[in-house]
Amino acid sequence: MELYGDERIDYLLADKSMQIIQSPTAFSFSLDAVLLAHFARVPIKKGEILDLCTGNGVIPLLLSKRTVAKITGVEIQERIFDMGKRSVQWNGLTEQIDLIHGDLKEMLPVLGHSSFDVVTCNPPYFPTPARTEHNTNQYLTIARHEVYCTLEDVVKACKLHVRPGGKVAMVHRPGRLVDILTLFRKYRIEPKRLRLVYPKRKKEANILLVEGIRDGKADLKILPPLYIYNQDGKYTEEAEEIIYG
Amino acid sequence: MELYGDERIDYLLADKSMQIIQSPTAFSFSLDAVLLAHFARVPIKKGEILDLCTGNGVIPLLLSKRTVAKITGVEIQERIFDMGKRSVQWNGLTEQIDLIHGDLKEMLPVLGHSSFDVVTCNPPYFPTPARTEHNTNQYLTIARHEVYCTLEDVVKACKLHVRPGGKVAMVHRPGRLVDILTLFRKYRIEPKRLRLVYPKRKKEANILLVEGIRDGKADLKILPPLYIYNQDGKYTEEAEEIIYG
Repeated sequence: MELYGDERIDYLLADKSMQIIQSPTAFSFSLDAVLLAHFARVPIKKGEILDLCTGNGVIPLLLSKRTVAKITGVEIQERIFDMGKRSVQWNGLTEQIDLIHGDLKEMLPVLGHSSFDVVTCNPPYFPTPARTEHNTNQYLTIARHEVYCTLEDVVKACKLHVRPGGKVAMVHRPGRLVDILTLFRKYRIEPKRLRLVYPKRKKEANILLVEGIRDGKADLKILPPLYIYNQDGKYTEEAEEIIYG
Repeated sequence: MELYGDERIDYLLADKSMQIIQSPTAFSFSLDAVLLAHFARVPIKKGEILDLCTGNGVIPLLLSKRTVAKITGVEIQERIFDMGKRSVQWNGLTEQIDLIHGDLKEMLPVLGHSSFDVVTCNPPYFPTPARTEHNTNQYLTIARHEVYCTLEDVVKACKLHVRPGGKVAMVHRPGRLVDILTLFRKYRIEPKRLRLVYPKRKKEANILLVEGIRDGKADLKILPPLYIYNQDGKYTEEAEEIIYG
């Protein structure tokens, strides 16, 4: 397989059964994506899963380890979409995973509405920076900042594509929890499970995982905290299990 | 001091410097109130604090240990208000704590608007039960269920009485987190600090503590989790410090 520029192939999981194309200047997946792929509840034997803001396809690749459901990913940046597409081919998963280059705000003609059992999304976290503050690397700016889509655009797209009773799972920053919960409710994706991720004990949470059910009944459960590092700086047992499978 | 019916006098804190009148059939304070009194940030040297749904005055009594600010409490049930009033007298705190028998929905003529630096509230947690399901004990039903006030009534009253830039601190159940955050934002009390309380490790949260600032900027911090019990069933060090001072 051809690699371009500074691309490299990384192992996705410790068992070395899967590989993914990454690029330090274009896109490398984060812990957040790994946590979301683990947190999301997906149908195992059949069904349709949609991953918005899929980047280099890390979440579809990770999910394919635990389901045979069809997985569709949407990525707006062609350069990164192309990395994902080659990763899917490289792993022999073109039957299960279909990546699409496109804008999540305009997927209705392509994906139809209410057709997915689960929608996952690891969206850009930060508001659009002032023009002068823009990260000079455009790929990273778009992946991290709300340049092409706001949080509301994302939640709206989740609502549009998930079936009634289907699940929407998202990873984000605690600073946006109020926005997320109010937008989920606004678009009738009732928040049902919330998990907070802490870098270590006695620190503030730095990642949140939330799952809602379209048209679900109001009743949120707040799961036990997840700690990433022990006091000695090594991964906790639970983090290690999530990251290395 | 006179005690009525099944009333008894309990120590409020381990140092035995303060006592409170309780009644198993009318009102006994809970861990939740103790946690809220510890969680709320209050002015130390001057200011005005309001405690809604004050019950037997447990939160004003606890707060008086760490501030000389004036504290006003409002309780709708006369029987329970009266217990609180006698507790305030018994502890010699009538100069600092003023308990009022009244309905939080109708306090505007009495308390004015925007006049408090901090408003605390440990409201009824549960929706009004069906008539037949009512706890046969009317005191407890009113304290625990939204009989006389809904969550929205409570948040509205907090907004009415807190000054711009002032704080509102509340304790509630995780199942209502979405309601609380959306109502806080609706009434422009921006949620700023959230702490989740877990009975022990690996369990779901069962109490939430939230603080908002009226007209504050959106940016929520999620504090480290608080565990109440160790695996051996004893209080954790942190819980012990909060409960026994």
